[in-house]
Amino acid sequence: MPSTNKKQILDSDLARLVSCAREARGRAYAPYSHYAVGAAAMGKSGKIFMGCNVENAAFPSGLCAERVAIFKAVSEGEREIIALAVVTANHGSPCGACRQVLSEFARDNAVIVLAATRGSKWKRFTMKEILPDRFGRQDLLSV
Amino acid sequence: MPSTNKKQILDSDLARLVSCAREARGRAYAPYSHYAVGAAAMGKSGKIFMGCNVENAAFPSGLCAERVAIFKAVSEGEREIIALAVVTANHGSPCGACRQVLSEFARDNAVIVLAATRGSKWKRFTMKEILPDRFGRQDLLSV
Amino acid sequence: MPSTNKKQILDSDLARLVSCAREARGRAYAPYSHYAVGAAAMGKSGKIFMGCNVENAAFPSGLCAERVAIFKAVSEGEREIIALAVVTANHGSPCGACRQVLSEFARDNAVIVLAATRGSKWKRFTMKEILPDRFGRQDLLSV
Amino acid sequence: MPSTNKKQILDSDLARLVSCAREARGRAYAPYSHYAVGAAAMGKSGKIFMGCNVENAAFPSGLCAERVAIFKAVSEGEREIIALAVVTANHGSPCGACRQVLSEFARDNAVIVLAATRGSKWKRFTMKEILPDRFGRQDLLSV
Repeated sequence: MPSTNKKQILDSDLARLVSCAREARGRAYAPYSHYAVGAAAMGKSGKIFMGCNVENAAFPSGLCAERVAIFKAVSEGEREIIALAVVTANHGSPCGACRQVLSEFARDNAVIVLAATRGSKWKRFTMKEILPDRFGRQDLLSV
Repeated sequence: MPSTNKKQILDSDLARLVSCAREARGRAYAPYSHYAVGAAAMGKSGKIFMGCNVENAAFPSGLCAERVAIFKAVSEGEREIIALAVVTANHGSPCGACRQVLSEFARDNAVIVLAATRGSKWKRFTMKEILPDRFGRQDLLSV
Repeated sequence: MPSTNKKQILDSDLARLVSCAREARGRAYAPYSHYAVGAAAMGKSGKIFMGCNVENAAFPSGLCAERVAIFKAVSEGEREIIALAVVTANHGSPCGACRQVLSEFARDNAVIVLAATRGSKWKRFTMKEILPDRFGRQDLLSV
Repeated sequence: MPSTNKKQILDSDLARLVSCAREARGRAYAPYSHYAVGAAAMGKSGKIFMGCNVENAAFPSGLCAERVAIFKAVSEGEREIIALAVVTANHGSPCGACRQVLSEFARDNAVIVLAATRGSKWKRFTMKEILPDRFGRQDLLSV
Protein backbone atom coordinates (compact mmCIF):
# COMPACT_ATOMS: atom_id res chain seq x y z
CA MET A 1 0.00 0.00 0.00
CA PRO A 2 1.14 3.55 -0.58
CA SER A 3 2.50 5.23 2.44
CA THR A 4 0.17 8.03 3.38
CA ASN A 5 -2.70 7.69 5.75
CA LYS A 6 -4.89 10.69 6.22
CA LYS A 7 -6.47 9.52 9.43
CA GLN A 8 -4.26 10.52 12.31
CA ILE A 9 -4.18 8.05 15.20
CA LEU A 10 -4.88 9.79 18.46
CA ASP A 11 -3.26 8.82 21.74
CA SER A 12 -6.75 8.28 23.10
CA ASP A 13 -7.43 5.77 20.30
CA LEU A 14 -4.28 3.87 21.20
CA ALA A 15 -5.19 3.85 24.88
CA ARG A 16 -8.56 2.40 23.98
CA LEU A 17 -6.90 -0.21 21.76
CA VAL A 18 -4.55 -1.27 24.54
CA SER A 19 -7.49 -1.55 26.88
CA CYS A 20 -9.31 -3.81 24.41
CA ALA A 21 -6.19 -5.95 23.93
CA ARG A 22 -5.95 -6.37 27.70
CA GLU A 23 -9.53 -7.52 27.83
CA ALA A 24 -9.01 -9.94 24.91
CA ARG A 25 -5.98 -11.44 26.62
CA GLY A 26 -8.31 -12.81 29.27
CA ARG A 27 -9.82 -15.16 26.71
CA ALA A 28 -6.50 -16.62 25.49
CA TYR A 29 -6.48 -20.36 24.90
CA ALA A 30 -2.85 -21.10 25.70
CA PRO A 31 -2.67 -24.44 27.52
CA TYR A 32 0.65 -25.38 25.93
CA SER A 33 2.76 -22.22 26.16
CA HIS A 34 0.96 -20.59 29.11
CA TYR A 35 1.94 -17.33 27.39
CA ALA A 36 -1.33 -15.43 27.07
CA VAL A 37 -1.53 -12.71 24.43
CA GLY A 38 -4.26 -10.21 23.64
CA ALA A 39 -4.52 -8.00 20.59
CA ALA A 40 -6.81 -5.33 19.19
CA ALA A 41 -6.81 -3.98 15.63
CA MET A 42 -8.40 -0.73 14.58
CA GLY A 43 -9.77 -0.65 11.06
CA LYS A 44 -9.90 2.47 8.90
CA SER A 45 -13.61 2.64 9.72
CA GLY A 46 -12.70 3.20 13.36
CA LYS A 47 -14.06 -0.16 14.47
CA ILE A 48 -12.00 -2.31 16.83
CA PHE A 49 -11.49 -6.07 16.50
CA MET A 50 -10.14 -8.14 19.36
CA GLY A 51 -8.12 -11.35 19.33
CA CYS A 52 -6.24 -13.69 21.63
CA ASN A 53 -3.87 -16.54 20.94
CA VAL A 54 -5.52 -19.88 20.20
CA GLU A 55 -3.10 -22.77 20.49
CA ASN A 56 -3.25 -26.34 19.20
CA ALA A 57 -1.77 -29.63 20.38
CA ALA A 58 -0.02 -29.63 17.01
CA PHE A 59 1.82 -26.41 17.78
CA PRO A 60 2.18 -25.09 14.19
CA SER A 61 -1.62 -25.20 13.81
CA GLY A 62 -2.20 -22.63 16.55
CA LEU A 63 -2.55 -18.91 15.86
CA CYS A 64 -1.23 -15.75 17.49
CA ALA A 65 -3.52 -13.11 18.99
CA GLU A 66 -2.51 -10.46 16.46
CA ARG A 67 -3.53 -12.59 13.51
CA VAL A 68 -6.81 -13.58 15.10
CA ALA A 69 -7.65 -9.88 15.47
CA ILE A 70 -6.56 -9.00 11.92
CA PHE A 71 -8.33 -11.93 10.26
CA LYS A 72 -11.45 -11.07 12.22
CA ALA A 73 -11.32 -7.47 10.99
CA VAL A 74 -10.90 -8.46 7.37
CA SER A 75 -13.59 -11.11 7.58
CA GLU A 76 -15.97 -8.45 8.80
CA GLY A 77 -15.28 -6.20 5.84
CA GLU A 78 -12.30 -4.07 6.86
CA ARG A 79 -9.61 -3.77 4.23
CA GLU A 80 -7.19 -1.48 6.05
CA ILE A 81 -5.79 -1.69 9.57
CA ILE A 82 -4.49 1.59 10.93
CA ALA A 83 -3.36 0.51 14.39
CA LEU A 84 -2.67 -2.67 16.32
CA ALA A 85 -2.16 -3.09 20.07
CA VAL A 86 -0.55 -6.19 21.56
CA VAL A 87 -0.58 -7.09 25.25
CA THR A 88 1.61 -9.69 26.93
CA ALA A 89 3.22 -10.08 30.34
CA ASN A 90 6.46 -8.56 29.07
CA HIS A 91 5.95 -6.22 26.09
CA GLY A 92 6.49 -9.13 23.68
CA SER A 93 6.64 -8.16 20.03
CA PRO A 94 4.52 -9.65 17.22
CA CYS A 95 6.18 -12.61 15.52
CA GLY A 96 7.28 -12.19 11.93
CA ALA A 97 4.29 -14.11 10.61
CA CYS A 98 1.87 -11.70 12.29
CA ARG A 99 3.80 -8.77 10.82
CA GLN A 100 3.40 -10.31 7.36
CA VAL A 101 -0.36 -10.71 7.78
CA LEU A 102 -0.69 -7.15 9.03
CA SER A 103 1.40 -5.96 6.10
CA GLU A 104 -1.22 -7.06 3.56
CA PHE A 105 -3.65 -4.57 5.09
CA ALA A 106 -1.49 -1.78 6.50
CA ARG A 107 0.28 1.27 5.17
CA ASP A 108 3.85 2.14 6.09
CA ASN A 109 2.72 4.45 8.87
CA ALA A 110 0.23 2.12 10.56
CA VAL A 111 0.96 2.08 14.29
CA ILE A 112 1.88 -0.98 16.40
CA VAL A 113 1.80 -0.53 20.17
CA LEU A 114 3.21 -3.13 22.59
CA ALA A 115 1.96 -2.97 26.16
CA ALA A 116 2.23 -5.07 29.28
CA THR A 117 -0.73 -6.27 31.28
CA ARG A 118 -0.60 -3.16 33.40
CA GLY A 119 1.15 0.18 33.35
CA SER A 120 1.32 2.90 30.77
CA LYS A 121 4.79 2.21 29.43
CA TRP A 122 4.44 1.19 25.78
CA LYS A 123 6.75 0.40 22.91
CA ARG A 124 5.63 1.98 19.66
CA PHE A 125 6.54 1.14 16.06
CA THR A 126 5.28 1.83 12.57
CA MET A 127 4.58 -0.93 10.07
CA LYS A 128 7.60 0.10 8.06
CA GLU A 129 9.89 -0.02 11.08
CA ILE A 130 8.71 -3.42 12.24
CA LEU A 131 8.87 -5.13 8.82
CA PRO A 132 11.43 -3.33 6.65
CA ASP A 133 11.63 -4.11 2.93
CA ARG A 134 8.39 -6.03 3.18
CA PHE A 135 7.20 -8.55 0.58
CA GLY A 136 3.79 -7.73 -0.84
CA ARG A 137 1.39 -7.81 -3.70
CA GLN A 138 3.55 -5.65 -5.93
CA ASP A 139 6.44 -8.10 -5.71
CA LEU A 140 4.22 -10.98 -6.61
CA LEU A 141 2.47 -9.34 -9.51
CA SER A 142 5.36 -7.46 -11.07
CA VAL A 143 7.02 -10.50 -12.60
CA MET B 1 -12.41 -34.66 23.71
CA PRO B 2 -14.66 -37.54 24.70
CA SER B 3 -17.10 -38.53 22.08
CA THR B 4 -20.56 -37.75 23.34
CA ASN B 5 -22.33 -34.54 22.76
CA LYS B 6 -25.65 -34.10 24.42
CA LYS B 7 -26.83 -31.24 22.24
CA GLN B 8 -28.37 -32.66 19.10
CA ILE B 9 -27.78 -30.60 15.95
CA LEU B 10 -31.06 -29.92 14.20
CA ASP B 11 -31.42 -29.71 10.45
CA SER B 12 -32.73 -26.21 10.93
CA ASP B 13 -29.51 -25.27 12.75
CA LEU B 14 -27.46 -26.59 9.86
CA ALA B 15 -29.57 -24.69 7.34
CA ARG B 16 -28.99 -21.52 9.30
CA LEU B 17 -25.25 -22.24 9.44
CA VAL B 18 -25.07 -22.76 5.69
CA SER B 19 -26.91 -19.52 5.17
CA CYS B 20 -24.41 -17.68 7.38
CA ALA B 21 -21.49 -19.28 5.55
CA ARG B 22 -22.95 -18.09 2.24
CA GLU B 23 -23.19 -14.57 3.58
CA ALA B 24 -19.62 -14.69 4.92
CA ARG B 25 -18.32 -15.88 1.56
CA GLY B 26 -19.25 -12.48 0.16
CA ARG B 27 -16.53 -10.88 2.27
CA ALA B 28 -13.74 -13.21 1.13
CA TYR B 29 -10.40 -11.53 0.42
CA ALA B 30 -9.10 -13.85 -2.28
CA PRO B 31 -7.25 -11.74 -4.86
CA TYR B 32 -4.68 -14.47 -5.53
CA SER B 33 -6.69 -17.68 -5.81
CA HIS B 34 -10.04 -16.13 -6.77
CA TYR B 35 -11.50 -19.08 -4.85
CA ALA B 36 -13.90 -17.50 -2.37
CA VAL B 37 -14.84 -19.52 0.69
CA GLY B 38 -17.30 -18.81 3.49
CA ALA B 39 -17.64 -20.65 6.77
CA ALA B 40 -19.78 -20.57 9.87
CA ALA B 41 -19.09 -22.33 13.16
CA MET B 42 -21.68 -23.01 15.82
CA GLY B 43 -20.42 -23.02 19.40
CA LYS B 44 -21.87 -25.14 22.15
CA SER B 45 -23.59 -21.99 23.41
CA GLY B 46 -25.58 -21.87 20.19
CA LYS B 47 -23.83 -18.74 18.93
CA ILE B 48 -22.65 -18.61 15.32
CA PHE B 49 -19.28 -17.25 14.17
CA MET B 50 -18.62 -16.42 10.53
CA GLY B 51 -15.41 -16.45 8.55
CA CYS B 52 -14.08 -16.10 5.02
CA ASN B 53 -10.70 -16.79 3.50
CA VAL B 54 -8.14 -14.01 3.90
CA GLU B 55 -5.21 -14.43 1.55
CA ASN B 56 -1.72 -12.92 1.57
CA ALA B 57 0.81 -12.10 -1.15
CA ALA B 58 3.05 -14.56 0.70
CA PHE B 59 0.63 -17.44 0.16
CA PRO B 60 1.45 -19.49 3.28
CA SER B 61 0.56 -16.49 5.46
CA GLY B 62 -3.06 -16.45 4.34
CA LEU B 63 -5.83 -18.25 6.21
CA CYS B 64 -8.81 -20.39 5.22
CA ALA B 65 -12.39 -19.40 5.98
CA GLU B 66 -12.94 -22.33 8.33
CA ARG B 67 -10.06 -21.37 10.56
CA VAL B 68 -11.07 -17.71 10.61
CA ALA B 69 -14.49 -18.77 11.89
CA ILE B 70 -13.10 -21.18 14.48
CA PHE B 71 -10.44 -18.80 15.80
CA LYS B 72 -13.08 -16.10 16.05
CA ALA B 73 -15.33 -18.39 18.09
CA VAL B 74 -12.59 -19.37 20.51
CA SER B 75 -11.38 -15.78 20.86
CA GLU B 76 -14.88 -14.82 21.89
CA GLY B 77 -15.00 -17.41 24.63
CA GLU B 78 -16.32 -20.58 23.00
CA ARG B 79 -14.40 -23.72 23.87
CA GLU B 80 -16.43 -26.24 21.88
CA ILE B 81 -17.59 -26.18 18.27
CA ILE B 82 -20.53 -28.46 17.55
CA ALA B 83 -21.04 -27.76 13.85
CA LEU B 84 -19.22 -26.14 10.95
CA ALA B 85 -20.61 -25.17 7.54
CA VAL B 86 -18.35 -24.46 4.56
CA VAL B 87 -19.51 -22.85 1.31
CA THR B 88 -17.55 -22.79 -1.94
CA ALA B 89 -18.47 -22.84 -5.63
CA ASN B 90 -18.05 -26.60 -5.75
CA HIS B 91 -18.61 -28.28 -2.37
CA GLY B 92 -14.88 -28.02 -1.61
CA SER B 93 -13.79 -29.75 1.57
CA PRO B 94 -11.83 -28.17 4.44
CA CYS B 95 -8.07 -28.57 4.06
CA GLY B 96 -6.27 -30.78 6.54
CA ALA B 97 -4.96 -27.81 8.51
CA CYS B 98 -8.50 -26.55 9.13
CA ARG B 99 -9.54 -30.02 10.25
CA GLN B 100 -6.69 -29.99 12.76
CA VAL B 101 -7.73 -26.63 14.19
CA LEU B 102 -11.34 -27.74 14.44
CA SER B 103 -10.18 -30.94 16.13
CA GLU B 104 -8.83 -29.05 19.16
CA PHE B 105 -12.35 -27.86 19.93
CA ALA B 106 -14.64 -30.56 18.56
CA ARG B 107 -15.91 -33.92 19.71
CA ASP B 108 -15.97 -36.96 17.45
CA ASN B 109 -19.58 -36.34 16.48
CA ALA B 110 -19.31 -32.64 15.63
CA VAL B 111 -20.93 -32.07 12.24
CA ILE B 112 -19.24 -30.63 9.13
CA VAL B 113 -21.50 -29.62 6.25
CA LEU B 114 -20.19 -28.71 2.79
CA ALA B 115 -22.49 -26.68 0.58
CA ALA B 116 -22.27 -24.87 -2.74
CA THR B 117 -23.22 -21.25 -3.25
CA ARG B 118 -26.75 -22.27 -4.05
CA GLY B 119 -28.88 -25.38 -3.85
CA SER B 120 -29.74 -27.64 -0.99
CA LYS B 121 -27.45 -30.53 -1.85
CA TRP B 122 -24.91 -30.87 0.95
CA LYS B 123 -22.13 -33.23 1.85
CA ARG B 124 -22.10 -34.14 5.53
CA PHE B 125 -19.34 -35.56 7.73
CA THR B 126 -18.52 -35.96 11.39
CA MET B 127 -15.26 -34.79 12.91
CA LYS B 128 -14.17 -38.37 13.32
CA GLU B 129 -14.89 -39.22 9.70
CA ILE B 130 -13.07 -36.21 8.30
CA LEU B 131 -9.92 -36.55 10.46
CA PRO B 132 -9.52 -40.19 11.49
CA ASP B 133 -6.94 -41.11 14.15
CA ARG B 134 -6.50 -37.47 14.98
CA PHE B 135 -3.55 -36.05 16.87
CA GLY B 136 -4.53 -34.13 19.97
CA ARG B 137 -3.80 -33.03 23.46
CA GLN B 138 -3.75 -36.55 24.85
CA ASP B 139 -0.98 -37.61 22.48
CA LEU B 140 1.12 -34.64 23.43
CA LEU B 141 0.70 -34.93 27.16
CA SER B 142 0.86 -38.70 27.56
CA VAL B 143 4.61 -38.97 27.02
CA MET C 1 -3.80 -37.45 -8.26
CA PRO C 2 -5.42 -40.52 -9.78
CA SER C 3 -5.54 -43.46 -7.53
CA THR C 4 -3.32 -46.14 -8.96
CA ASN C 5 0.29 -46.52 -8.12
CA LYS C 6 2.20 -49.16 -10.00
CA LYS C 7 5.09 -49.36 -7.59
CA GLN C 8 4.17 -51.72 -4.81
CA ILE C 9 5.53 -50.78 -1.39
CA LEU C 10 7.35 -53.71 0.14
CA ASP C 11 7.38 -54.44 3.85
CA SER C 12 11.13 -54.20 3.69
CA ASP C 13 10.81 -50.66 2.28
CA LEU C 14 8.57 -49.69 5.15
CA ALA C 15 10.93 -51.19 7.70
CA ARG C 16 13.74 -49.14 6.20
CA LEU C 17 11.57 -46.01 6.29
CA VAL C 18 10.74 -46.53 9.96
CA SER C 19 14.40 -47.00 10.71
CA CYS C 20 15.22 -43.70 8.96
CA ALA C 21 12.43 -41.91 10.83
CA ARG C 22 13.83 -43.19 14.11
CA GLU C 23 17.24 -41.86 13.21
CA ALA C 24 15.80 -38.49 12.17
CA ARG C 25 13.91 -38.19 15.45
CA GLY C 26 17.27 -37.89 17.20
CA ARG C 27 17.79 -34.53 15.54
CA ALA C 28 14.44 -33.02 16.60
CA TYR C 29 14.56 -29.42 17.79
CA ALA C 30 11.69 -29.48 20.27
CA PRO C 31 12.65 -27.30 23.25
CA TYR C 32 9.06 -26.11 23.78
CA SER C 33 6.95 -29.26 23.48
CA HIS C 34 9.63 -31.81 24.35
CA TYR C 35 7.69 -34.06 21.96
CA ALA C 36 10.32 -35.29 19.50
CA VAL C 37 9.12 -36.56 16.14
CA GLY C 38 11.00 -38.17 13.27
CA ALA C 39 9.72 -38.78 9.76
CA ALA C 40 10.93 -40.32 6.53
CA ALA C 41 9.32 -39.97 3.11
CA MET C 42 9.97 -42.27 0.18
CA GLY C 43 9.74 -40.65 -3.24
CA LYS C 44 8.63 -42.47 -6.36
CA SER C 45 12.29 -42.62 -7.35
CA GLY C 46 12.95 -44.79 -4.31
CA LYS C 47 14.98 -42.14 -2.52
CA ILE C 48 14.32 -41.46 1.15
CA PHE C 49 14.10 -38.01 2.74
CA MET C 50 14.29 -37.54 6.50
CA GLY C 51 12.79 -34.88 8.72
CA CYS C 52 12.28 -33.98 12.36
CA ASN C 53 10.15 -31.37 14.05
CA VAL C 54 11.68 -27.89 14.23
CA GLU C 55 9.91 -25.68 16.75
CA ASN C 56 9.87 -21.91 17.21
CA ALA C 57 9.36 -19.64 20.22
CA ALA C 58 6.37 -18.34 18.26
CA PHE C 59 4.70 -21.74 18.24
CA PRO C 60 2.76 -21.39 14.95
CA SER C 61 6.03 -20.76 13.10
CA GLY C 62 7.43 -24.18 13.91
CA LEU C 63 7.07 -27.16 11.60
CA CYS C 64 6.26 -30.84 12.06
CA ALA C 65 8.67 -33.61 11.14
CA GLU C 66 6.42 -34.98 8.40
CA ARG C 67 6.33 -31.69 6.54
CA VAL C 68 10.06 -31.16 6.88
CA ALA C 69 10.59 -34.54 5.21
CA ILE C 70 8.04 -33.89 2.45
CA PHE C 71 9.23 -30.36 1.67
CA LYS C 72 12.78 -31.67 1.55
CA ALA C 73 11.78 -34.36 -0.94
CA VAL C 74 9.98 -31.94 -3.23
CA SER C 75 12.78 -29.40 -3.03
CA GLU C 76 15.17 -32.07 -4.21
CA GLY C 77 13.07 -32.84 -7.24
CA GLU C 78 10.60 -35.51 -6.14
CA ARG C 79 7.04 -34.89 -7.25
CA GLU C 80 5.40 -37.98 -5.77
CA ILE C 81 5.63 -39.47 -2.29
CA ILE C 82 4.70 -43.13 -2.12
CA ALA C 83 5.22 -43.79 1.59
CA LEU C 84 5.73 -41.86 4.80
CA ALA C 85 6.88 -43.18 8.18
CA VAL C 86 6.38 -41.23 11.41
CA VAL C 87 8.03 -42.05 14.72
CA THR C 88 7.03 -40.67 18.12
CA ALA C 89 7.04 -41.98 21.68
CA ASN C 90 3.44 -43.11 21.36
CA HIS C 91 2.41 -43.85 17.75
CA GLY C 92 1.20 -40.23 17.34
CA SER C 93 -0.56 -39.53 14.06
CA PRO C 94 0.33 -36.75 11.59
CA CYS C 95 -1.59 -33.54 12.23
CA GLY C 96 -4.12 -32.44 9.64
CA ALA C 97 -1.78 -29.85 8.18
CA CYS C 98 0.86 -32.50 7.46
CA ARG C 99 -1.79 -34.67 5.81
CA GLN C 100 -2.72 -31.74 3.58
CA VAL C 101 0.89 -31.18 2.50
CA LEU C 102 1.36 -34.88 1.80
CA SER C 103 -1.88 -34.86 -0.17
CA GLU C 104 -0.47 -32.51 -2.82
CA PHE C 105 2.11 -35.15 -3.71
CA ALA C 106 0.47 -38.48 -2.90
CA ARG C 107 -1.99 -40.81 -4.54
CA ASP C 108 -4.91 -42.36 -2.70
CA ASN C 109 -2.97 -45.52 -1.97
CA ALA C 110 0.22 -43.91 -0.64
CA VAL C 111 1.12 -45.59 2.64
CA ILE C 112 1.49 -43.90 6.03
CA VAL C 113 3.10 -45.91 8.82
CA LEU C 114 3.10 -44.80 12.47
CA ALA C 115 5.69 -46.36 14.72
CA ALA C 116 6.99 -45.89 18.25
CA THR C 117 10.62 -45.38 19.12
CA ARG C 118 11.06 -49.08 19.50
CA GLY C 119 9.12 -52.22 18.73
CA SER C 120 7.64 -53.55 15.55
CA LYS C 121 4.00 -52.71 16.21
CA TRP C 122 2.88 -50.17 13.62
CA LYS C 123 -0.31 -48.47 12.65
CA ARG C 124 -0.84 -48.33 8.91
CA PHE C 125 -3.07 -46.09 6.79
CA THR C 126 -3.46 -45.05 3.20
CA MET C 127 -3.59 -41.42 2.11
CA LYS C 128 -7.26 -41.78 1.34
CA GLU C 129 -8.04 -43.22 4.75
CA ILE C 130 -6.16 -40.57 6.66
CA LEU C 131 -7.57 -37.57 4.76
CA PRO C 132 -10.97 -38.50 3.31
CA ASP C 133 -12.62 -36.18 0.78
CA ARG C 134 -9.41 -34.24 0.45
CA PHE C 135 -9.18 -30.75 -1.01
CA GLY C 136 -6.78 -30.50 -3.92
CA ARG C 137 -5.77 -28.95 -7.16
CA GLN C 138 -8.88 -30.13 -8.98
CA ASP C 139 -11.17 -28.31 -6.54
CA LEU C 140 -9.24 -25.12 -6.91
CA LEU C 141 -9.03 -25.14 -10.69
CA SER C 142 -12.49 -26.42 -11.56
CA VAL C 143 -14.30 -23.19 -10.72
CA MET D 1 20.87 -15.56 20.60
CA PRO D 2 23.63 -13.23 21.74
CA SER D 3 24.81 -10.92 19.09
CA THR D 4 28.39 -11.82 18.28
CA ASN D 5 29.41 -14.25 15.64
CA LYS D 6 33.06 -14.98 15.35
CA LYS D 7 32.91 -16.46 11.89
CA GLN D 8 33.14 -13.66 9.36
CA ILE D 9 31.09 -14.19 6.20
CA LEU D 10 33.23 -13.72 3.14
CA ASP D 11 31.96 -12.21 -0.09
CA SER D 12 32.99 -15.41 -1.79
CA ASP D 13 30.75 -17.37 0.61
CA LEU D 14 27.82 -15.15 -0.27
CA ALA D 15 28.48 -15.52 -3.98
CA ARG D 16 28.44 -19.26 -3.55
CA LEU D 17 25.20 -19.07 -1.56
CA VAL D 18 23.53 -16.99 -4.26
CA SER D 19 24.66 -19.48 -6.85
CA CYS D 20 23.13 -22.34 -4.84
CA ALA D 21 19.88 -20.41 -4.38
CA ARG D 22 19.71 -19.88 -8.15
CA GLU D 23 20.13 -23.58 -8.71
CA ALA D 24 17.48 -24.42 -6.10
CA ARG D 25 15.02 -22.03 -7.73
CA GLY D 26 14.94 -24.35 -10.71
CA ARG D 27 13.20 -26.98 -8.59
CA ALA D 28 10.43 -24.68 -7.31
CA TYR D 29 6.95 -26.22 -7.19
CA ALA D 30 4.88 -23.10 -7.78
CA PRO D 31 1.93 -24.03 -10.00
CA TYR D 32 -0.41 -21.58 -8.26
CA SER D 33 1.63 -18.37 -7.92
CA HIS D 34 4.09 -18.99 -10.76
CA TYR D 35 6.50 -17.05 -8.55
CA ALA D 36 9.54 -19.31 -8.28
CA VAL D 37 11.88 -18.75 -5.36
CA GLY D 38 15.20 -20.36 -4.48
CA ALA D 39 17.07 -20.11 -1.19
CA ALA D 40 20.29 -21.32 0.33
CA ALA D 41 21.22 -21.25 4.01
CA MET D 42 24.75 -21.55 5.34
CA GLY D 43 25.09 -23.21 8.73
CA LYS D 44 27.80 -22.37 11.23
CA SER D 45 29.53 -25.58 10.14
CA GLY D 46 29.97 -24.08 6.69
CA LYS D 47 27.56 -26.49 5.05
CA ILE D 48 24.97 -25.16 2.61
CA PHE D 49 21.31 -26.23 2.52
CA MET D 50 19.09 -25.44 -0.46
CA GLY D 51 15.37 -24.86 -0.67
CA CYS D 52 12.66 -23.78 -3.09
CA ASN D 53 9.05 -22.82 -2.57
CA VAL D 54 6.62 -25.75 -2.41
CA GLU D 55 3.03 -24.64 -2.86
CA ASN D 56 -0.27 -26.36 -2.04
CA ALA D 57 -3.77 -26.16 -3.52
CA ALA D 58 -4.76 -24.99 -0.04
CA PHE D 59 -2.51 -21.95 -0.22
CA PRO D 60 -1.74 -21.58 3.51
CA SER D 61 -0.33 -25.12 3.55
CA GLY D 62 2.47 -24.28 1.13
CA LEU D 63 5.93 -23.22 2.25
CA CYS D 64 8.42 -20.57 1.14
CA ALA D 65 11.87 -21.41 -0.16
CA GLU D 66 13.65 -19.77 2.74
CA ARG D 67 11.88 -21.92 5.31
CA VAL D 68 12.45 -25.10 3.33
CA ALA D 69 16.19 -24.35 3.37
CA ILE D 70 16.26 -23.46 7.07
CA PHE D 71 14.17 -26.44 8.20
CA LYS D 72 16.37 -28.70 6.11
CA ALA D 73 19.50 -27.31 7.78
CA VAL D 74 18.13 -27.77 11.29
CA SER D 75 16.84 -31.24 10.50
CA GLU D 76 20.32 -32.21 9.43
CA GLY D 77 21.82 -31.08 12.70
CA GLU D 78 22.67 -27.40 12.23
CA ARG D 79 21.61 -25.17 15.09
CA GLU D 80 22.87 -21.83 13.78
CA ILE D 81 22.41 -20.20 10.39
CA ILE D 82 25.00 -17.55 9.58
CA ALA D 83 23.83 -16.49 6.12
CA LEU D 84 20.80 -16.88 3.86
CA ALA D 85 20.54 -16.10 0.14
CA VAL D 86 17.19 -15.67 -1.60
CA VAL D 87 16.69 -15.57 -5.37
CA THR D 88 13.56 -14.39 -7.17
CA ALA D 89 12.86 -12.63 -10.45
CA ASN D 90 12.82 -9.27 -8.73
CA HIS D 91 14.90 -9.19 -5.53
CA GLY D 92 11.82 -10.11 -3.48
CA SER D 93 12.35 -10.09 0.27
CA PRO D 94 11.62 -12.97 2.67
CA CYS D 95 8.10 -12.83 4.13
CA GLY D 96 7.74 -12.12 7.82
CA ALA D 97 7.08 -15.76 8.63
CA CYS D 98 10.41 -16.81 7.08
CA ARG D 99 12.18 -14.09 9.06
CA GLN D 100 10.65 -15.51 12.24
CA VAL D 101 11.84 -19.02 11.47
CA LEU D 102 15.33 -17.77 10.65
CA SER D 103 15.31 -15.77 13.87
CA GLU D 104 15.17 -18.90 16.02
CA PHE D 105 18.54 -19.96 14.64
CA ALA D 106 20.33 -16.71 13.77
CA ARG D 107 22.28 -14.05 15.63
CA ASP D 108 21.70 -10.35 15.12
CA ASN D 109 24.49 -10.12 12.58
CA ALA D 110 23.51 -13.08 10.40
CA VAL D 111 23.49 -11.95 6.77
CA ILE D 112 20.53 -12.06 4.37
CA VAL D 113 21.26 -11.47 0.69
CA LEU D 114 18.54 -10.91 -1.91
CA ALA D 115 19.47 -11.53 -5.53
CA ALA D 116 17.71 -11.71 -8.86
CA THR D 117 17.98 -14.63 -11.24
CA ARG D 118 20.94 -13.02 -12.91
CA GLY D 119 23.26 -10.10 -12.31
CA SER D 120 25.48 -9.22 -9.38
CA LYS D 121 23.34 -6.48 -7.86
CA TRP D 122 22.22 -7.68 -4.41
CA LYS D 123 20.35 -6.25 -1.48
CA ARG D 124 21.96 -7.07 1.84
CA PHE D 125 20.53 -7.03 5.37
CA THR D 126 21.37 -8.35 8.79
CA MET D 127 18.94 -10.40 10.86
CA LYS D 128 18.47 -7.49 13.22
CA GLU D 129 17.71 -5.09 10.41
CA ILE D 130 15.17 -7.35 8.73
CA LEU D 131 13.28 -8.29 11.92
CA PRO D 132 13.72 -5.53 14.51
CA ASP D 133 12.59 -6.15 18.11
CA ARG D 134 12.18 -9.82 17.35
CA PHE D 135 10.16 -12.20 19.48
CA GLY D 136 12.15 -15.16 20.70
CA ARG D 137 12.82 -17.75 23.32
CA GLN D 138 13.73 -15.21 25.99
CA ASP D 139 10.35 -13.51 25.71
CA LEU D 140 8.54 -16.78 26.05
CA LEU D 141 10.51 -18.11 28.96
CA SER D 142 10.92 -14.95 31.02
CA VAL D 143 7.33 -14.85 32.26
